[in-house]
Amino acid sequence: MSQEAAISVIHDTDKNVLDIILSRRSQRAFADTPVTSEQVETLFEAAKWAPSSVNEQPWQYIYANKGEELWDVIFGTLHEGNQVWAKNAPVLVVSLARTTFSRNGRANAYAMYDLGGANVLLSLQATSMGLNVHQMGGYDHEGLRQALRVPSDLELGVIMAIGFPGDGEQLPEQLRERDRAPRVRRPLEDFVMNKTY
Amino acid sequence: MSQEAAISVIHDTDKNVLDIILSRRSQRAFADTPVTSEQVETLFEAAKWAPSSVNEQPWQYIYANKGEELWDVIFGTLHEGNQVWAKNAPVLVVSLARTTFSRNGRANAYAMYDLGGANVLLSLQATSMGLNVHQMGGYDHEGLRQALRVPSDLELGVIMAIGFPGDGEQLPEQLRERDRAPRVRRPLEDFVMNKTY
Repeated sequence: MSQEAAISVIHDTDKNVLDIILSRRSQRAFADTPVTSEQVETLFEAAKWAPSSVNEQPWQYIYANKGEELWDVIFGTLHEGNQVWAKNAPVLVVSLARTTFSRNGRANAYAMYDLGGANVLLSLQATSMGLNVHQMGGYDHEGLRQALRVPSDLELGVIMAIGFPGDGEQLPEQLRERDRAPRVRRPLEDFVMNKTY
Repeated sequence: MSQEAAISVIHDTDKNVLDIILSRRSQRAFADTPVTSEQVETLFEAAKWAPSSVNEQPWQYIYANKGEELWDVIFGTLHEGNQVWAKNAPVLVVSLARTTFSRNGRANAYAMYDLGGANVLLSLQATSMGLNVHQMGGYDHEGLRQALRVPSDLELGVIMAIGFPGDGEQLPEQLRERDRAPRVRRPLEDFVMNKTY
Protein backbone atom coordinates (compact mmCIF):
# COMPACT_ATOMS: atom_id res chain seq x y z
CA MET A 1 0.00 0.00 0.00
CA SER A 2 1.36 3.41 -0.89
CA GLN A 3 1.74 6.09 1.75
CA GLU A 4 -0.92 8.15 0.03
CA ALA A 5 -3.40 5.31 0.29
CA ALA A 6 -3.26 5.67 4.07
CA ILE A 7 -5.70 8.59 3.76
CA SER A 8 -8.49 6.05 3.23
CA VAL A 9 -9.81 3.36 5.55
CA ILE A 10 -8.51 0.46 3.50
CA HIS A 11 -9.82 -3.04 4.06
CA ASP A 12 -8.20 -6.27 2.89
CA THR A 13 -10.63 -6.39 0.01
CA ASP A 14 -9.34 -3.05 -1.27
CA LYS A 15 -5.85 -4.42 -1.72
CA ASN A 16 -6.17 -4.72 -5.49
CA VAL A 17 -7.65 -1.28 -6.09
CA LEU A 18 -5.47 1.15 -8.07
CA ASP A 19 -3.38 3.45 -5.88
CA ILE A 20 -4.49 6.48 -7.89
CA ILE A 21 -8.12 5.71 -6.97
CA LEU A 22 -7.34 5.18 -3.28
CA SER A 23 -5.21 8.29 -3.00
CA ARG A 24 -7.74 10.76 -4.45
CA ARG A 25 -9.51 12.85 -1.85
CA SER A 26 -11.42 16.14 -1.57
CA GLN A 27 -9.57 18.50 0.74
CA ARG A 28 -10.57 21.97 1.83
CA ALA A 29 -7.09 23.33 2.57
CA PHE A 30 -5.20 24.94 -0.29
CA ALA A 31 -1.59 26.14 -0.53
CA ASP A 32 -0.64 29.49 -2.06
CA THR A 33 1.25 27.68 -4.82
CA PRO A 34 -0.16 28.86 -8.16
CA VAL A 35 -1.55 26.40 -10.71
CA THR A 36 -0.19 27.01 -14.22
CA SER A 37 -2.46 27.26 -17.25
CA GLU A 38 -0.72 24.19 -18.69
CA GLN A 39 -1.64 22.23 -15.57
CA VAL A 40 -5.26 23.37 -15.81
CA GLU A 41 -5.37 22.35 -19.48
CA THR A 42 -4.05 18.89 -18.68
CA LEU A 43 -6.98 18.39 -16.28
CA PHE A 44 -9.46 19.08 -19.07
CA GLU A 45 -7.49 16.90 -21.51
CA ALA A 46 -7.98 14.05 -19.02
CA ALA A 47 -11.69 14.78 -18.53
CA LYS A 48 -12.44 14.59 -22.22
CA TRP A 49 -11.43 10.89 -22.40
CA ALA A 50 -14.47 9.91 -20.33
CA PRO A 51 -17.00 7.62 -21.98
CA SER A 52 -20.31 9.22 -22.98
CA SER A 53 -23.60 8.23 -24.54
CA VAL A 54 -23.00 7.88 -28.33
CA ASN A 55 -19.74 9.78 -27.70
CA GLU A 56 -21.69 13.05 -27.35
CA GLN A 57 -19.15 14.46 -24.82
CA PRO A 58 -21.81 16.70 -23.28
CA TRP A 59 -19.43 18.33 -20.76
CA GLN A 60 -18.46 21.99 -20.78
CA TYR A 61 -16.18 23.89 -18.42
CA ILE A 62 -15.71 27.51 -17.42
CA TYR A 63 -12.57 28.10 -15.36
CA ALA A 64 -11.27 31.18 -13.59
CA ASN A 65 -8.03 32.01 -11.82
CA LYS A 66 -7.94 33.83 -8.52
CA GLY A 67 -7.50 37.53 -9.23
CA GLU A 68 -9.74 37.46 -12.29
CA GLU A 69 -13.16 39.09 -12.14
CA LEU A 70 -14.73 35.82 -13.29
CA TRP A 71 -13.30 34.04 -10.23
CA ASP A 72 -15.06 36.60 -8.01
CA VAL A 73 -18.33 36.11 -9.88
CA ILE A 74 -18.26 32.34 -9.41
CA PHE A 75 -17.06 32.58 -5.82
CA GLY A 76 -19.87 35.01 -5.03
CA THR A 77 -22.49 32.35 -5.80
CA LEU A 78 -21.05 29.75 -3.39
CA HIS A 79 -22.90 29.01 -0.19
CA GLU A 80 -21.22 30.54 2.83
CA GLY A 81 -20.15 27.14 4.16
CA ASN A 82 -18.12 26.64 1.00
CA GLN A 83 -16.79 30.20 0.81
CA VAL A 84 -15.07 29.75 4.18
CA TRP A 85 -12.49 27.44 2.65
CA ALA A 86 -12.88 27.90 -1.14
CA LYS A 87 -11.63 31.48 -0.80
CA ASN A 88 -8.10 30.06 -0.91
CA ALA A 89 -8.58 28.04 -4.10
CA PRO A 90 -6.34 29.31 -6.96
CA VAL A 91 -8.77 27.96 -9.58
CA LEU A 92 -12.54 27.63 -9.68
CA VAL A 93 -14.19 25.54 -12.40
CA VAL A 94 -17.89 25.50 -13.27
CA SER A 95 -18.88 22.22 -14.92
CA LEU A 96 -21.94 22.00 -17.17
CA ALA A 97 -23.57 19.47 -19.45
CA ARG A 98 -25.54 19.91 -22.66
CA THR A 99 -28.85 18.12 -22.19
CA THR A 100 -29.65 17.67 -25.89
CA PHE A 101 -27.80 15.60 -28.47
CA SER A 102 -25.92 17.76 -30.98
CA ARG A 103 -26.78 15.44 -33.87
CA ASN A 104 -30.58 15.53 -33.52
CA GLY A 105 -31.55 17.90 -30.70
CA ARG A 106 -33.25 15.14 -28.70
CA ALA A 107 -32.99 14.99 -24.91
CA ASN A 108 -29.85 13.34 -23.53
CA ALA A 109 -30.88 11.61 -20.30
CA TYR A 110 -27.25 10.72 -19.60
CA ALA A 111 -25.77 14.24 -19.76
CA MET A 112 -25.26 14.70 -16.01
CA TYR A 113 -24.27 11.06 -15.62
CA ASP A 114 -21.55 11.50 -18.25
CA LEU A 115 -20.39 14.75 -16.66
CA GLY A 116 -19.92 12.84 -13.39
CA GLY A 117 -17.54 10.48 -15.16
CA ALA A 118 -15.58 13.28 -16.80
CA ASN A 119 -15.16 15.10 -13.49
CA VAL A 120 -13.84 11.96 -11.80
CA LEU A 121 -11.20 11.58 -14.53
CA LEU A 122 -10.32 15.24 -14.03
CA SER A 123 -9.95 14.57 -10.30
CA LEU A 124 -7.77 11.48 -10.76
CA GLN A 125 -5.54 13.36 -13.17
CA ALA A 126 -5.25 16.13 -10.59
CA THR A 127 -4.32 13.59 -7.91
CA SER A 128 -1.51 12.28 -10.10
CA MET A 129 -0.18 15.86 -10.42
CA GLY A 130 -0.32 16.51 -6.68
CA LEU A 131 -3.39 18.73 -7.10
CA ASN A 132 -6.55 18.66 -5.01
CA VAL A 133 -10.07 18.92 -6.45
CA HIS A 134 -13.06 19.60 -4.21
CA GLN A 135 -16.51 19.42 -5.82
CA MET A 136 -19.33 21.63 -4.56
CA GLY A 137 -23.06 21.38 -5.20
CA GLY A 138 -23.81 24.11 -2.68
CA TYR A 139 -24.16 27.36 -4.61
CA ASP A 140 -26.84 29.69 -5.99
CA HIS A 141 -27.72 27.85 -9.20
CA GLU A 142 -30.03 30.51 -10.60
CA GLY A 143 -27.60 33.30 -9.73
CA LEU A 144 -24.70 31.52 -11.41
CA ARG A 145 -26.80 30.74 -14.48
CA GLN A 146 -27.63 34.42 -14.90
CA ALA A 147 -24.12 35.67 -14.15
CA LEU A 148 -22.57 33.31 -16.73
CA ARG A 149 -25.45 33.77 -19.22
CA VAL A 150 -25.75 29.97 -19.48
CA PRO A 151 -27.89 28.88 -22.49
CA SER A 152 -31.06 27.00 -21.60
CA ASP A 153 -29.93 23.69 -23.10
CA LEU A 154 -27.04 23.50 -20.63
CA GLU A 155 -27.49 22.12 -17.11
CA LEU A 156 -25.26 23.34 -14.30
CA GLY A 157 -23.20 20.65 -12.58
CA VAL A 158 -20.79 21.06 -9.68
CA ILE A 159 -18.30 23.86 -9.11
CA MET A 160 -14.79 22.57 -8.45
CA ALA A 161 -12.19 24.25 -6.26
CA ILE A 162 -8.71 23.30 -7.48
CA GLY A 163 -5.22 23.88 -6.15
CA PHE A 164 -2.29 22.30 -4.38
CA PRO A 165 -3.18 20.97 -0.92
CA GLY A 166 -2.32 23.17 2.04
CA ASP A 167 -1.75 22.42 5.71
CA GLY A 168 -5.13 23.74 6.80
CA GLU A 169 -3.78 26.36 9.22
CA GLN A 170 -6.11 28.95 7.70
CA LEU A 171 -9.18 26.72 8.20
CA PRO A 172 -11.59 26.77 11.16
CA GLU A 173 -10.63 23.89 13.47
CA GLN A 174 -13.69 21.79 12.67
CA LEU A 175 -12.97 21.84 8.94
CA ARG A 176 -9.29 21.15 9.56
CA GLU A 177 -10.23 17.97 11.41
CA ARG A 178 -12.63 16.86 8.68
CA ASP A 179 -9.88 17.47 6.14
CA ARG A 180 -7.55 15.12 7.99
CA ALA A 181 -10.05 12.37 8.81
CA PRO A 182 -9.59 9.19 6.76
CA ARG A 183 -12.06 8.57 3.96
CA VAL A 184 -14.71 5.99 4.79
CA ARG A 185 -16.99 3.96 2.51
CA ARG A 186 -19.87 1.50 2.86
CA PRO A 187 -18.92 -2.19 2.61
CA LEU A 188 -19.70 -4.06 -0.60
CA GLU A 189 -22.62 -6.02 0.88
CA ASP A 190 -24.46 -2.71 1.30
CA PHE A 191 -24.62 -1.94 -2.41
CA VAL A 192 -23.77 -5.04 -4.49
CA MET A 193 -25.88 -8.12 -5.03
CA ASN A 194 -26.29 -11.10 -7.33
CA LYS A 195 -30.09 -11.23 -7.17
CA THR A 196 -33.24 -9.15 -7.72
CA TYR A 197 -34.66 -6.81 -5.04
CA MET B 1 3.34 6.92 -24.69
CA SER B 2 2.38 3.36 -23.83
CA GLN B 3 1.43 0.88 -26.56
CA GLU B 4 -2.08 0.76 -25.17
CA ALA B 5 -2.44 4.52 -25.58
CA ALA B 6 -2.23 3.99 -29.34
CA ILE B 7 -5.92 3.04 -29.30
CA SER B 8 -6.75 6.74 -28.95
CA VAL B 9 -6.09 9.65 -31.26
CA ILE B 10 -3.52 11.32 -29.03
CA HIS B 11 -2.54 14.93 -29.61
CA ASP B 12 0.54 16.67 -28.23
CA THR B 13 -1.60 18.26 -25.55
CA ASP B 14 -2.60 14.83 -24.25
CA LYS B 15 0.98 13.94 -23.47
CA ASN B 16 0.60 14.46 -19.73
CA VAL B 17 -2.65 12.52 -19.34
CA LEU B 18 -2.45 9.34 -17.25
CA ASP B 19 -1.90 6.20 -19.32
CA ILE B 20 -4.71 4.42 -17.49
CA ILE B 21 -7.13 7.11 -18.69
CA LEU B 22 -5.88 7.00 -22.29
CA SER B 23 -5.93 3.22 -22.46
CA ARG B 24 -9.54 2.70 -21.30
CA ARG B 25 -11.96 1.95 -24.09
CA SER B 26 -15.38 0.35 -24.62
CA GLN B 27 -15.05 -2.69 -26.84
CA ARG B 28 -17.80 -4.99 -28.09
CA ALA B 29 -15.69 -8.12 -28.58
CA PHE B 30 -15.30 -10.45 -25.60
CA ALA B 31 -13.07 -13.49 -25.11
CA ASP B 32 -14.36 -16.75 -23.60
CA THR B 33 -12.02 -16.29 -20.63
CA PRO B 34 -14.12 -16.35 -17.46
CA VAL B 35 -14.05 -13.47 -14.96
CA THR B 36 -13.59 -14.65 -11.37
CA SER B 37 -15.83 -13.47 -8.54
CA GLU B 38 -12.77 -11.92 -6.88
CA GLN B 39 -12.12 -9.87 -10.01
CA VAL B 40 -15.73 -8.72 -10.10
CA GLU B 41 -15.54 -7.72 -6.43
CA THR B 42 -12.40 -5.67 -7.03
CA LEU B 43 -14.29 -3.65 -9.65
CA PHE B 44 -16.94 -2.71 -7.08
CA GLU B 45 -14.28 -1.99 -4.44
CA ALA B 46 -12.84 0.55 -6.89
CA ALA B 47 -16.24 2.08 -7.71
CA LYS B 48 -17.05 2.77 -4.07
CA TRP B 49 -14.10 5.21 -3.73
CA ALA B 50 -15.83 7.70 -6.02
CA PRO B 51 -16.71 11.08 -4.52
CA SER B 52 -20.40 11.71 -3.84
CA SER B 53 -22.65 14.46 -2.53
CA VAL B 54 -22.26 14.50 1.30
CA ASN B 55 -20.65 11.05 0.89
CA GLU B 56 -24.09 9.50 0.28
CA GLN B 57 -22.62 6.83 -2.04
CA PRO B 58 -25.96 6.49 -3.88
CA TRP B 59 -24.77 3.71 -6.23
CA GLN B 60 -26.08 0.16 -6.22
CA TYR B 61 -25.14 -2.77 -8.44
CA ILE B 62 -26.76 -6.03 -9.48
CA TYR B 63 -24.38 -8.36 -11.30
CA ALA B 64 -24.95 -11.68 -13.02
CA ASN B 65 -22.64 -14.28 -14.54
CA LYS B 66 -23.35 -15.90 -17.87
CA GLY B 67 -25.18 -19.17 -17.23
CA GLU B 68 -27.21 -17.73 -14.35
CA GLU B 69 -30.94 -17.11 -14.84
CA LEU B 70 -30.39 -13.49 -13.74
CA TRP B 71 -27.96 -12.95 -16.62
CA ASP B 72 -30.68 -14.09 -19.05
CA VAL B 73 -33.22 -11.75 -17.44
CA ILE B 74 -30.93 -8.72 -17.79
CA PHE B 75 -29.81 -9.72 -21.28
CA GLY B 76 -33.44 -10.09 -22.37
CA THR B 77 -34.09 -6.40 -21.75
CA LEU B 78 -31.22 -5.17 -23.96
CA HIS B 79 -32.03 -3.58 -27.29
CA GLU B 80 -31.31 -5.89 -30.21
CA GLY B 81 -28.37 -3.75 -31.35
CA ASN B 82 -26.69 -4.43 -28.02
CA GLN B 83 -27.67 -8.10 -27.80
CA VAL B 84 -25.75 -8.81 -31.03
CA TRP B 85 -22.44 -8.37 -29.23
CA ALA B 86 -23.32 -8.42 -25.50
CA LYS B 87 -24.34 -12.08 -25.83
CA ASN B 88 -20.67 -12.95 -25.38
CA ALA B 89 -20.16 -10.93 -22.17
CA PRO B 90 -19.30 -13.17 -19.18
CA VAL B 91 -20.71 -10.61 -16.73
CA LEU B 92 -23.61 -8.15 -16.93
CA VAL B 93 -23.96 -5.43 -14.30
CA VAL B 94 -27.01 -3.24 -13.74
CA SER B 95 -26.07 0.06 -12.10
CA LEU B 96 -28.61 2.06 -10.10
CA ALA B 97 -28.67 5.14 -7.90
CA ARG B 98 -30.80 5.98 -4.88
CA THR B 99 -32.42 9.35 -5.61
CA THR B 100 -33.11 10.28 -1.97
CA PHE B 101 -30.62 10.98 0.80
CA SER B 102 -30.56 8.19 3.41
CA ARG B 103 -30.17 10.64 6.29
CA ASN B 104 -33.27 12.77 5.60
CA GLY B 105 -35.21 11.31 2.66
CA ARG B 106 -34.83 14.48 0.59
CA ALA B 107 -34.21 14.36 -3.17
CA ASN B 108 -30.59 13.86 -4.21
CA ALA B 109 -30.16 15.78 -7.48
CA TYR B 110 -26.63 14.40 -7.84
CA ALA B 111 -27.47 10.68 -7.65
CA MET B 112 -27.00 9.91 -11.35
CA TYR B 113 -24.06 12.29 -11.56
CA ASP B 114 -22.33 10.44 -8.72
CA LEU B 115 -23.13 7.07 -10.31
CA GLY B 116 -21.38 8.28 -13.45
CA GLY B 117 -18.22 8.88 -11.43
CA ALA B 118 -18.39 5.50 -9.71
CA ASN B 119 -18.82 3.69 -13.03
CA VAL B 120 -15.80 5.44 -14.51
CA LEU B 121 -13.66 4.30 -11.57
CA LEU B 122 -15.00 0.78 -12.09
CA SER B 123 -14.02 1.03 -15.76
CA LEU B 124 -10.51 2.31 -15.03
CA GLN B 125 -9.97 -0.46 -12.49
CA ALA B 126 -11.13 -2.96 -15.12
CA THR B 127 -8.69 -1.49 -17.64
CA SER B 128 -5.83 -1.98 -15.18
CA MET B 129 -6.83 -5.67 -14.85
CA GLY B 130 -7.03 -6.21 -18.61
CA LEU B 131 -10.82 -6.25 -18.51
CA ASN B 132 -13.18 -4.42 -20.86
CA VAL B 133 -16.32 -2.55 -19.71
CA HIS B 134 -18.95 -1.45 -22.21
CA GLN B 135 -21.77 0.73 -20.90
CA MET B 136 -25.24 0.52 -22.45
CA GLY B 137 -28.18 2.89 -22.13
CA GLY B 138 -30.16 1.01 -24.77
CA TYR B 139 -32.48 -1.39 -22.95
CA ASP B 140 -36.13 -1.72 -21.86
CA HIS B 141 -36.05 0.38 -18.69
CA GLU B 142 -39.57 -0.42 -17.57
CA GLY B 143 -39.13 -4.11 -18.30
CA LEU B 144 -35.89 -4.29 -16.33
CA ARG B 145 -37.39 -2.35 -13.43
CA GLN B 146 -40.22 -4.86 -13.18
CA ALA B 147 -38.02 -7.92 -13.65
CA LEU B 148 -35.62 -6.83 -10.90
CA ARG B 149 -38.43 -5.47 -8.67
CA VAL B 150 -36.51 -2.19 -8.34
CA PRO B 151 -37.86 0.02 -5.49
CA SER B 152 -39.27 3.36 -6.60
CA ASP B 153 -36.56 5.45 -4.90
CA LEU B 154 -33.92 3.88 -7.12
CA GLU B 155 -33.20 5.15 -10.64
CA LEU B 156 -31.86 2.80 -13.28
CA GLY B 157 -28.48 3.76 -14.75
CA VAL B 158 -26.53 1.97 -17.46
CA ILE B 159 -26.07 -1.77 -17.88
CA MET B 160 -22.42 -2.76 -18.21
CA ALA B 161 -21.09 -5.70 -20.22
CA ILE B 162 -17.81 -6.89 -18.69
CA GLY B 163 -15.20 -9.41 -19.74
CA PHE B 164 -11.74 -9.86 -21.22
CA PRO B 165 -11.44 -8.36 -24.71
CA GLY B 166 -11.75 -10.75 -27.64
CA ASP B 167 -10.55 -10.54 -31.23
CA GLY B 168 -13.95 -9.71 -32.65
CA GLU B 169 -14.16 -12.69 -35.02
CA GLN B 170 -17.68 -13.42 -33.76
CA LEU B 171 -18.86 -9.83 -34.45
CA PRO B 172 -20.59 -8.57 -37.60
CA GLU B 173 -17.97 -6.84 -39.76
CA GLN B 174 -19.33 -3.34 -39.16
CA LEU B 175 -19.06 -3.69 -35.38
CA ARG B 176 -15.63 -5.26 -35.66
CA GLU B 177 -14.42 -2.17 -37.51
CA ARG B 178 -15.95 0.19 -34.96
CA ASP B 179 -14.27 -1.83 -32.22
CA ARG B 180 -10.88 -1.29 -33.81
CA ALA B 181 -11.25 2.37 -34.76
CA PRO B 182 -9.19 4.76 -32.60
CA ARG B 183 -11.07 6.77 -29.98
CA VAL B 184 -11.66 10.39 -30.95
CA ARG B 185 -12.53 13.41 -28.80
CA ARG B 186 -13.43 17.08 -29.33
CA PRO B 187 -10.55 19.54 -28.91
CA LEU B 188 -10.36 21.61 -25.73
CA GLU B 189 -11.48 24.85 -27.39
CA ASP B 190 -14.86 23.19 -28.06
CA PHE B 191 -15.73 22.75 -24.40
CA VAL B 192 -13.44 24.85 -22.16
CA MET B 193 -13.42 28.61 -21.73
CA ASN B 194 -12.23 31.33 -19.39
CA LYS B 195 -15.24 33.63 -19.85
CA THR B 196 -19.02 33.75 -19.64
CA TYR B 197 -21.31 32.58 -22.47
